Amino acid sequence: MKFLHELLNIQSVSGDEGEFTDFLLTYIGKRKKSWSVTPEIYSGEEFHDCILLKFGNPRTAVFAHMDTIGFMVRYTNQLIPVGGPEIIPSSKLIGKDKYGEIDCALLGDEEGVFHDFPRKIDVGTRLSFKQNIRVDENFIQAAYLDNRLGVYNALLQCETIKDGWVVFSTYEEHGGGSMPFLLDFIQKTAPIKQALISDITWITEGVQHHEGVVISIRDKFIPRKKFIDRVIDLAQKSKIPYQLEVEAYGGSDGREVQFSPYAIDWCFIGAAEDHVHTPNEKVSLQDFQSMVDLYRFLISNL
Amino acid sequence: MKFLHELLNIQSVSGDEGEFTDFLLTYIGKRKKSWSVTPEIYSGEEFHDCILLKFGNPRTAVFAHMDTIGFMVRYTNQLIPVGGPEIIPSSKLIGKDKYGEIDCALLGDEEGVFHDFPRKIDVGTRLSFKQNIRVDENFIQAAYLDNRLGVYNALLQCETIKDGWVVFSTYEEHGGGSMPFLLDFIQKTAPIKQALISDITWITEGVQHHEGVVISIRDKFIPRKKFIDRVIDLAQKSKIPYQLEVEAYGGSDGREVQFSPYAIDWCFIGAAEDHVHTPNEKVSLQDFQSMVDLYRFLISNL
Amino acid sequence: MKFLHELLNIQSVSGDEGEFTDFLLTYIGKRKKSWSVTPEIYSGEEFHDCILLKFGNPRTAVFAHMDTIGFMVRYTNQLIPVGGPEIIPSSKLIGKDKYGEIDCALLGDEEGVFHDFPRKIDVGTRLSFKQNIRVDENFIQAAYLDNRLGVYNALLQCETIKDGWVVFSTYEEHGGGSMPFLLDFIQKTAPIKQALISDITWITEGVQHHEGVVISIRDKFIPRKKFIDRVIDLAQKSKIPYQLEVEAYGGSDGREVQFSPYAIDWCFIGAAEDHVHTPNEKVSLQDFQSMVDLYRFLISNL
Repeated sequence: MKFLHELLNIQSVSGDEGEFTDFLLTYIGKRKKSWSVTPEIYSGEEFHDCILLKFGNPRTAVFAHMDTIGFMVRYTNQLIPVGGPEIIPSSKLIGKDKYGEIDCALLGDEEGVFHDFPRKIDVGTRLSFKQNIRVDENFIQAAYLDNRLGVYNALLQCETIKDGWVVFSTYEEHGGGSMPFLLDFIQKTAPIKQALISDITWITEGVQHHEGVVISIRDKFIPRKKFIDRVIDLAQKSKIPYQLEVEAYGGSDGREVQFSPYAIDWCFIGAAEDHVHTPNEKVSLQDFQSMVDLYRFLISNL
Repeated sequence: MKFLHELLNIQSVSGDEGEFTDFLLTYIGKRKKSWSVTPEIYSGEEFHDCILLKFGNPRTAVFAHMDTIGFMVRYTNQLIPVGGPEIIPSSKLIGKDKYGEIDCALLGDEEGVFHDFPRKIDVGTRLSFKQNIRVDENFIQAAYLDNRLGVYNALLQCETIKDGWVVFSTYEEHGGGSMPFLLDFIQKTAPIKQALISDITWITEGVQHHEGVVISIRDKFIPRKKFIDRVIDLAQKSKIPYQLEVEAYGGSDGREVQFSPYAIDWCFIGAAEDHVHTPNEKVSLQDFQSMVDLYRFLISNL
Repeated sequence: MKFLHELLNIQSVSGDEGEFTDFLLTYIGKRKKSWSVTPEIYSGEEFHDCILLKFGNPRTAVFAHMDTIGFMVRYTNQLIPVGGPEIIPSSKLIGKDKYGEIDCALLGDEEGVFHDFPRKIDVGTRLSFKQNIRVDENFIQAAYLDNRLGVYNALLQCETIKDGWVVFSTYEEHGGGSMPFLLDFIQKTAPIKQALISDITWITEGVQHHEGVVISIRDKFIPRKKFIDRVIDLAQKSKIPYQLEVEAYGGSDGREVQFSPYAIDWCFIGAAEDHVHTPNEKVSLQDFQSMVDLYRFLISNL
């Protein structure tokens, strides 16, 4: 939990993931010797701010996006959304520009968003929700569970994975753009036929807390039925609690797998949260545990 | 016509084209020896549910999508569209889940779509319009003429084509996703400079039944004028009846040719239908014949 | 200025850039010997209507799109926009079909656009704003400054560039489609890590005439912060006047760099205009000079 707190406290609004990348690289460097298999690590300018870990002989890749939603300062005191944050007046926002630390509140509504910081903030500065982590027996509640829990799950998989890629992507909340070059590198280095998207989805009338990790049959995009059926069959065999999701909206890094020039099957698998894209995202701890368990099972058995 | 009836009676809602693919592969296996040139056949898991046929030394590829619009069962009795089906209350829908065959009616409107099947249907089950084929001297009317007629045209081309690719794609009705890897494979195997999209378009104030196959100058996307001009010049020379289309909306597999990393020209050529994306799609038999004739002419002369 | 007038007087609505391409190729052929470095020229059918110039050992590519917005004739006297032209009744439109030259006026509004030409115009004919170039001490005003000034800047860079690609793209105003194959060719021929988009942006409450060339921190898409920071640092050092832009909307060839399968950083840099996408686009001559100066500085120093 201490480590998860650290993950949750680093800002990385889409396009500015560098600090978070460095944090993960340090962690990976320290921990990799305790993992079942020591991965090859690919990172650095050639990969922008992304990280790829190759374990053994991959059949499957796990993708977790490192970026979060947020806001960018426009002129005067205007803000423009990055990704799709909920506009909740009085939300606390933090950031940093060349004059120093920023701690302010959000004003306005869907028509126009502003900050109340007493001084001008540099044009282009990124702000994000002030973190407030709350944990009890059943739930974790915080900003950016989407997708710090997806990243955390991916790191936990590193402990036991024998064969596979674990990949940390950027920009996902704002249309994507790193997946195409990541997939290209993967297919040229140690190609895969299947991808699991380690990300957080939504509580809806059909998806409830404590009912298990969600396997998404579709969001705005529709993965191939044959693969989803295999995943569901394995989930059934695993006895790990899971729920099925069918949504008309929403997307993930899976979209860019679908539209890539490679015939790679994909499936979004992740715990569900409510208060999506607010400072109060809330996930059942049991559901997160099911997520970790199901990834472990699928990575071995797919 | 018996074969076309068979084509029209197989369900293959986007993402679940497997049964239709198997049907085509069986047909191709049986018929290929009667064709002018015996093609190389590429299919199987490496190509997901797509099929590529390579005849001789290709300059041109013909693409026909195998999937259809439909609906997916969400929670309780809700339905979510796959592709853009018309929402017509009382339309008959069929499908299948692990409890057996489904035959029900559509309820609701654009705001919310439901089914009236008395039992719960498995989450994620695909439903599609119940088929009702009507043929007279002048017209064929049925569900899924878009794109079973495009597939049928592509198969008829196989009988006479000497040089070219004939390719059956998936997911087209729901945003695409197979074209990028199909194009990648084509360009690495026997590259082309031009693509014809064998698909069905719309009757509008400028496109009428019995006026010939439609050559589309644009839909939402705009192919290169130099290529369209060549196609129209050839159509003119062929004496085969054709019409020109200029639309602001709509898309096809041509979109993914346009945005591919290859400089491949493309043109949408197909008969027009009215009652688009309903159980009552209606196409002039003469126009379909012009489509078959024009493809034959263009494949030889482009 | 005489040359810029020539550039401004050639029509090249998206998809029909051929005549403009030929004009540029003739110009490049004549002038290349006077340039510091003689480039390798890539053009012809293999590149559709695009042109690539490779100077020395490239680290950076400059992209300028050659196409303009306009209209396409539909049936009867209807027009459909190409790209996003402003619909201003009575705007003069010109074009050409097989019956001869066309000179007419635009009728209608956002609901429906028409022309008043007394005879039928061939379906699919492209029309564009009649040119009217006005220059005084401070401003140039004309149709299609977007992106003839971007092209002009790119050509001026050719005079002094030692290492880099200068690339002229097509279709940008209507969704793009040439960038993927241009990038593919570049990366296979002489790969780059960074791209500058030579295009024209908008006057807004934060971007004013005579305040310098605009460096765009974001439009609808968000380039990587690390690269933008480097560009801004260099601009600062150069002492050339510049302004920073933060917008929620708009796109450019940068979008396709972002979504390409290559880890290439990109930044949109260009003068701002008002009366965007009208016959009266207006740009400060000083701002254009700053654009030329900053490109020169960045190409050497990035």
